[in-house]
Amino acid sequence: MGEFDLLARVRERLPAPGPRVRLGSGDDAAVTVPGGATATSVDALVDGVHFRREQSSLAQIGRKALAAALSDLAAMGAEPGEAYLVLGVPPDLDEPGCLELLDGAAALATETGTSLAGGDVTRAPALTLAVTVVGHAESAEDLVTRSGARPGDALVVTGELGGAAAGLLLLEREEVRSSLVSHRATNDDRGPVARQLEPRPRLNAGRALAEAGATAMIDLSDGLGGDAGHIAEASGIGLRIDAAALPLAPGVAEIARAAGLDPLELAASGGEDYELLAALPPERLDEAVAAVTARGETQLTRIGEVVADGGVEIRLPGGRRSKPRGFDQLDRTGPR
Amino acid sequence: MGEFDLLARVRERLPAPGPRVRLGSGDDAAVTVPGGATATSVDALVDGVHFRREQSSLAQIGRKALAAALSDLAAMGAEPGEAYLVLGVPPDLDEPGCLELLDGAAALATETGTSLAGGDVTRAPALTLAVTVVGHAESAEDLVTRSGARPGDALVVTGELGGAAAGLLLLEREEVRSSLVSHRATNDDRGPVARQLEPRPRLNAGRALAEAGATAMIDLSDGLGGDAGHIAEASGIGLRIDAAALPLAPGVAEIARAAGLDPLELAASGGEDYELLAALPPERLDEAVAAVTARGETQLTRIGEVVADGGVEIRLPGGRRSKPRGFDQLDRTGPR
Repeated sequence: MGEFDLLARVRERLPAPGPRVRLGSGDDAAVTVPGGATATSVDALVDGVHFRREQSSLAQIGRKALAAALSDLAAMGAEPGEAYLVLGVPPDLDEPGCLELLDGAAALATETGTSLAGGDVTRAPALTLAVTVVGHAESAEDLVTRSGARPGDALVVTGELGGAAAGLLLLEREEVRSSLVSHRATNDDRGPVARQLEPRPRLNAGRALAEAGATAMIDLSDGLGGDAGHIAEASGIGLRIDAAALPLAPGVAEIARAAGLDPLELAASGGEDYELLAALPPERLDEAVAAVTARGETQLTRIGEVVADGGVEIRLPGGRRSKPRGFDQLDRTGPR
Repeated sequence: MGEFDLLARVRERLPAPGPRVRLGSGDDAAVTVPGGATATSVDALVDGVHFRREQSSLAQIGRKALAAALSDLAAMGAEPGEAYLVLGVPPDLDEPGCLELLDGAAALATETGTSLAGGDVTRAPALTLAVTVVGHAESAEDLVTRSGARPGDALVVTGELGGAAAGLLLLEREEVRSSLVSHRATNDDRGPVARQLEPRPRLNAGRALAEAGATAMIDLSDGLGGDAGHIAEASGIGLRIDAAALPLAPGVAEIARAAGLDPLELAASGGEDYELLAALPPERLDEAVAAVTARGETQLTRIGEVVADGGVEIRLPGGRRSKPRGFDQLDRTGPR
């Protein structure tokens, strides 16, 4: 497979670029005219670390790589603009496979109004994707960082939690799968496996939250406990989270029990949900709920509050407290 | 090694970001206020494909990854702005190694006025670097693409050619090394090995050429023949190159002969010199030579002209013609 041939084939398949893109893929660099402020993030996925090729279609892998990167733009409240994709191709991935993967990314790009404006292709020992995304806002002040949460703010989360972790349990643990023979958790549109393999960046909700006065925001890639800790540290405040208020994704309770885990702990520590966690003044909570709901993408749930200090505390029913940490109990131990 | 710990250590070591960067590494995304137009390019390097760890210091690898990416900005005539680095860390690379690699990139960032504004770290089976760079210009029209060359334009190249390919011959072929026992080609500042391991992006020359009216420009990463072909195709013109006019890097003649190769063919087809090839109106040639020389980075050599059609023709002494192609005769066959 020639790198140039593949790039030419890819260019043929890309959706038309957005108005800010003056020159897309095929020159030394893409040329854009951003205006205002830009938010830029990079995200890398490696086979055996972030996904397993035997568990995903190539289209799902391409789609997830872009979704994970766009989720960072959602967490800034930015409008998605351009994406640049580095593809590391292992010896056993042929050109049709590369194109299937890129088609998966291109489909999400089209759905979200993102221009795939450039990229690079190289050989690599394992399938590797690195995605750079650029989002836009009228000014830097319109973008929401992790560092503005203030004591008294309400803490909210979009969508539902634990679904991606439950999906990973189904994919990785044969004994969980087999104990749930009656469960309908399949690769359908809303099941836990789909939450794991085809996450959706909450771009509309992120912009609604930014407009509704969110003081701090982060996307839940590492898990609620760990990501809440990033907000607490960056803002210099504490967070009190009521685990009983967490919106559980469908199937989480059943799958967690089959795996011998507490469903609320799974929701509080499971990664890759790519929902948004935000702080905002309590007097703007109703406005935020209405704004997020109006966009039709997902709903908003109040799960706690910002306090002056004390780090992150997740209160479980019965007075137990969860350790705030990332989700690391699954057997996803690295490249094989 | 914890990803978060490493990222925190990295942030401590970064040079202060430039004035366009409102928020650097450590949030969901970096925030910049570009103004005007931006040029964005991504470039990936993988151990065993683009370098070999046993031939380079880690600092050289980090430096080269950023240099290769910045070279694309040089070829647009853009001012370097921000860089975002994805690092795929293999099991045998420890935290001090990662930091040495990042220090190498940071040193070049400081030298070139580039802000290392973000990144991502992941495990990977082989050392992998993906660098996204963003450059700036007052308007999109100030940036030089590959597609504006016109018949009658002069064709010029910066610096010297063949040095990186000669350095690769020294690194890869024991019989070349041993036949050159008396040769001083070492890892010093100007030798062929340094040209291979520590290329320098021609950022100042690129901006000087853009200001002097370059109609098309590309950086020589794949080799003169192949990269000239990209300009010819994008501009819809032909290129006539006089191989005898090519500025040979020191050591190229001796090393090529030791390897049984024609020095001019090596210079015409060897990749990774990261010099710039540009077309410009002949009446502005003197201005361009003076502008490039005045910046003190390198010199400019006229090597041919743009004609109406006929693809790329490289005329060798004695009436021979070289095939215009990338440099692929070396044994750099991929991940091991």
